[in-house]
Amino acid sequence: MEKVDTTDRLARLRELMKKHKVDIYIIPSEDSHSSEYIAPCDARREYITGFTGSAGCAVVTHEKAALATDGRYFNQATKQLDSNWLLLKQGLQDVPTWQEWSADQSEGGKVVGVDPTVISAPDARKLAEKIKKRGGQELMAIEENLVDQIWGEGRSPRPSEPVKVLGKQFAGKDVKTKLDELRKDLEKKKSSGFVVSMLDEIAWLFNLRGNDIPYNPVFFSYASVTPTTATLYVDESKLSTESQTYLAENGVSVRPYEKIFEDTQILGQSLASANGDGAPEAKIRKFLVSNKTSWALKRSLGGETKVDELRSPIGDAKAVKNETELEGMRQCHIRDGAALIEYFSWLEDQLNVQKVQLDEVTAADKLEEMRSKHKHFVGLSFDTISSTGANAAVIHYKPERGNCSTIDPKAIYLCDSGAQYFDGTTDTTRTLHFGVPTDMERKAYTLVLKGHIALDVAIFPKGTTGFALDTLARQFLWEEGLDYRHGTGHGVGSYLNVHEGPIGIGTRIQYSEVPLAPGNVISNEPGYYEDGTFGIRIENIIMVKEAETKHKFGDKPYLGFEHVTMVPYCRKLIDETLLTRREKNWLNEYHADVHAKTKDFFKENELALKWLERETVPF
Amino acid sequence: MEKVDTTDRLARLRELMKKHKVDIYIIPSEDSHSSEYIAPCDARREYITGFTGSAGCAVVTHEKAALATDGRYFNQATKQLDSNWLLLKQGLQDVPTWQEWSADQSEGGKVVGVDPTVISAPDARKLAEKIKKRGGQELMAIEENLVDQIWGEGRSPRPSEPVKVLGKQFAGKDVKTKLDELRKDLEKKKSSGFVVSMLDEIAWLFNLRGNDIPYNPVFFSYASVTPTTATLYVDESKLSTESQTYLAENGVSVRPYEKIFEDTQILGQSLASANGDGAPEAKIRKFLVSNKTSWALKRSLGGETKVDELRSPIGDAKAVKNETELEGMRQCHIRDGAALIEYFSWLEDQLNVQKVQLDEVTAADKLEEMRSKHKHFVGLSFDTISSTGANAAVIHYKPERGNCSTIDPKAIYLCDSGAQYFDGTTDTTRTLHFGVPTDMERKAYTLVLKGHIALDVAIFPKGTTGFALDTLARQFLWEEGLDYRHGTGHGVGSYLNVHEGPIGIGTRIQYSEVPLAPGNVISNEPGYYEDGTFGIRIENIIMVKEAETKHKFGDKPYLGFEHVTMVPYCRKLIDETLLTRREKNWLNEYHADVHAKTKDFFKENELALKWLERETVPF
Repeated sequence: MEKVDTTDRLARLRELMKKHKVDIYIIPSEDSHSSEYIAPCDARREYITGFTGSAGCAVVTHEKAALATDGRYFNQATKQLDSNWLLLKQGLQDVPTWQEWSADQSEGGKVVGVDPTVISAPDARKLAEKIKKRGGQELMAIEENLVDQIWGEGRSPRPSEPVKVLGKQFAGKDVKTKLDELRKDLEKKKSSGFVVSMLDEIAWLFNLRGNDIPYNPVFFSYASVTPTTATLYVDESKLSTESQTYLAENGVSVRPYEKIFEDTQILGQSLASANGDGAPEAKIRKFLVSNKTSWALKRSLGGETKVDELRSPIGDAKAVKNETELEGMRQCHIRDGAALIEYFSWLEDQLNVQKVQLDEVTAADKLEEMRSKHKHFVGLSFDTISSTGANAAVIHYKPERGNCSTIDPKAIYLCDSGAQYFDGTTDTTRTLHFGVPTDMERKAYTLVLKGHIALDVAIFPKGTTGFALDTLARQFLWEEGLDYRHGTGHGVGSYLNVHEGPIGIGTRIQYSEVPLAPGNVISNEPGYYEDGTFGIRIENIIMVKEAETKHKFGDKPYLGFEHVTMVPYCRKLIDETLLTRREKNWLNEYHADVHAKTKDFFKENELALKWLERETVPF
Repeated sequence: MEKVDTTDRLARLRELMKKHKVDIYIIPSEDSHSSEYIAPCDARREYITGFTGSAGCAVVTHEKAALATDGRYFNQATKQLDSNWLLLKQGLQDVPTWQEWSADQSEGGKVVGVDPTVISAPDARKLAEKIKKRGGQELMAIEENLVDQIWGEGRSPRPSEPVKVLGKQFAGKDVKTKLDELRKDLEKKKSSGFVVSMLDEIAWLFNLRGNDIPYNPVFFSYASVTPTTATLYVDESKLSTESQTYLAENGVSVRPYEKIFEDTQILGQSLASANGDGAPEAKIRKFLVSNKTSWALKRSLGGETKVDELRSPIGDAKAVKNETELEGMRQCHIRDGAALIEYFSWLEDQLNVQKVQLDEVTAADKLEEMRSKHKHFVGLSFDTISSTGANAAVIHYKPERGNCSTIDPKAIYLCDSGAQYFDGTTDTTRTLHFGVPTDMERKAYTLVLKGHIALDVAIFPKGTTGFALDTLARQFLWEEGLDYRHGTGHGVGSYLNVHEGPIGIGTRIQYSEVPLAPGNVISNEPGYYEDGTFGIRIENIIMVKEAETKHKFGDKPYLGFEHVTMVPYCRKLIDETLLTRREKNWLNEYHADVHAKTKDFFKENELALKWLERETVPF
């Protein structure tokens, strides 16, 4: 990973900051839609810092510059940041959050500024409060993005890829039903309407898919839904004729993307008159926006008095997959599993028998090629993490083409990858060893596997959250004084974003807010990482379903998981002596299932079949 | 349990409500100090509802009356409430909280009123917001308590028991040091001072103990601590000469109890001038109060602009026991365990050999007598739960003297009890069977025991909360579709309240806020209850300590527990086939420890010694 010299960029940014009379400028990672993955033209934080990780926030003052990021990226950020930057390791004791750090800088009446389209309304509010407490000025909304102004010619144009209809055979539920259900929910919440800004929520609501953001089949858009109208804000040129007809048939109007701010201003103004001027606040039917909506959009609607923020009802509905989506998940994971089995058997042969030198990206290319042959394949769902030896300890490692390591057959190999298929989104991690693992590698792998199994077999009453289940996955590592600095599970979209809310399994407090529900699709990915040595992660996709229990205390459903990922674990890395009989039985059943569901793909691939059979022999 | 006819009480209350022009009147359970256990004179909620459980809130309108309580008390409340009352089962789906229910009643401009001395400031604020949203008027603070006015002669006088010094051999830390540490904390928080309202915090801070509240060695008082002063508000007549000298020596002034409101008003007014009038808000050094402080006290200090609410720094400090307190806990639990062993062996003999008929209270009296012989005994730490058969399913069952069940030697017997000793506070639950348990009883007992062991042996990194550990105690029950409707653990005081915050193990979200720390003392008490049939609970007191782990990932300490309770489990109720080898080893080690530490108490009690030996034979 190379460092970018950011001296000149920072100097130009600071000049603009002077012009705008701002002492501290915040550069979040997000685009205007709170997207986690963004289009290259929105990678302002990456441009200014040189740090390419997906999460983080930059704060620039006239004297200092700080990047805040979380445990997944400490390693990577240390490698990529030049000496202009201070790294704020979020989550470590005594390290301030970027909000605290910004507030500290604002002491003595300093001005903090931010582009209001790239920070969510709650984040802006919390930041403003912190700044006020430390004695800074009101948070300033600077409409022009200062990084965009210094970026110049190097900046990519905004993507404008075609938008297509996702057929009911994949979506499982039609747009009319989804709109009906949303409107019922809005009525229950006594709201005037919902303004949608999250790109995956819009794609899901209208059964449309695009390609504006790498790996995420979404398209730049906004939407608003009222009891009588549904409007999609998108460049009409992107819509196929089929899409246009489809939207019209479903009662959805189309308006240009950039009209959202104009229209929401009018919507906001209409609210007072519709509710009768002077009506008590309690009687006003406000608009709803999700708590990820930008500060700019909320301001445009009229702010606090016109808008209620909440966890998006579309996000909640989207997280509960329908039967078609669940079956799609099962099916695409079988095909995806077959591709991974083919890949791992090929890779082992290349390294150990053919003695070929392969670098991490070349190998990942082969995996993509193998996936792409499968039915319904669209593309990858994220950059493949193909990492050898110490690179595997970089949790979100991204090998650079032409500048990455050669895979060492005598070291750990960690592969975290996934794809988009019309019938679902996959995300699988397997950690392999083609040589002789160390005792510590086997021990760590087995402890991670025990946690992975404990979560897979967990049964829990309705109402339980991913926060409460996280401990199950970590308990065996903790017992040895080991741990991992990332969550255990994230929600996964259906042919949509590979990371989606609101559910998750982990120690983040927001995971204590939303109980898991039947139909949720989530990852199960504990790990262990030794900086500079090796890394282990084992990841399946699991789906929440009602469990059969002998009793049913409290007359509430008890829930459990169904795993859909179909790839064997690495036998060589398993220390059988650390497993209970029950864990071995679980592994045997899992492997028998993998074998049965994937073997027919290898009728003409003896290498893969032999590998599959060897790896799935019972314990 | 008998029902009280509340018709007349409610009629008189409603008349007073009319006089005060209030439509909805709130009667919380708490006294002016947010005490969980209260003096009889403060049992306003009990008087008005007839429900004697420790937790709940009553809401009375002109037409309706509702009592809200949690899962521990659903059974008991159903039995005790007469037909004037609606029971709001808190925590069940679709049941409104008492705040929501009150707000619903306030729709259309109704007035909700409450005595501001018996509701905490945050609770009053949240309630006021909910009421406002539903269209009610501003929450009204009614200074005279309306229930007190209708209570009349039946009301007990306010207790005024002597206050004594707890010597350093028990407290472990002197007052000067405690005050120094608090002042350092206040300086760090840039505060003008701390006004203390929780009785156990005051007792702890000044190393004093009283006897104003049954089972809780506290005394009615307030306190304020500034950088230069420390004032205790207490009736001087309660203080022994020794206490007075002790306070004077430690620089603590004494003022009458009721002067707190006058003095805090002056303190609040002094703040503006001390900070300079017109100083920006951020520069004002506010007072701190705990988030349990009454609305009345916060109003008296001057409200939001003068006061910051926070989790009490004294509560945090008190929860981390010093070495003397930890050693005291170990020692008093050995003596307390000996009393319980003596009791259980005696009870078995009475029922099975002597064939004596014993009721639940008579048996509990015997237990108290056995405890009282032991060194440093002061009294019980709560009402003994001595419950036979179906009574054991009433989670906080309190047998009534002269009107309770005869102990059935053919049914489950659950005993949850504890005592106050100068060197610590105990709280132990054991569930026994003197006859032949059913398969379901054995299964449930063993699953509860497995969870109890899983929590006991848990290792976790510093920063982990009781919220995250709760799942470990429930996992085996969940697997069978079983659960319990109470927390798994509560903090325990050192010769102080048997329930104390801020830590706890359970699904309440506040348990996700405070990580467990070495020195914390907490209960480990999973259970299982079948309404109308039987109940099981197994409870030890455990202390958090640094754990020895092979590795130390993240350079942070890993923590674990030390158990101090010394009473055998019930062999008859253990289904050995459900235990792992590791669990059996744990039981064997535990039983060997109990045997070694308690056997010397039974040199002249063959019955107890034989029982102890039989119950601690290895598996």
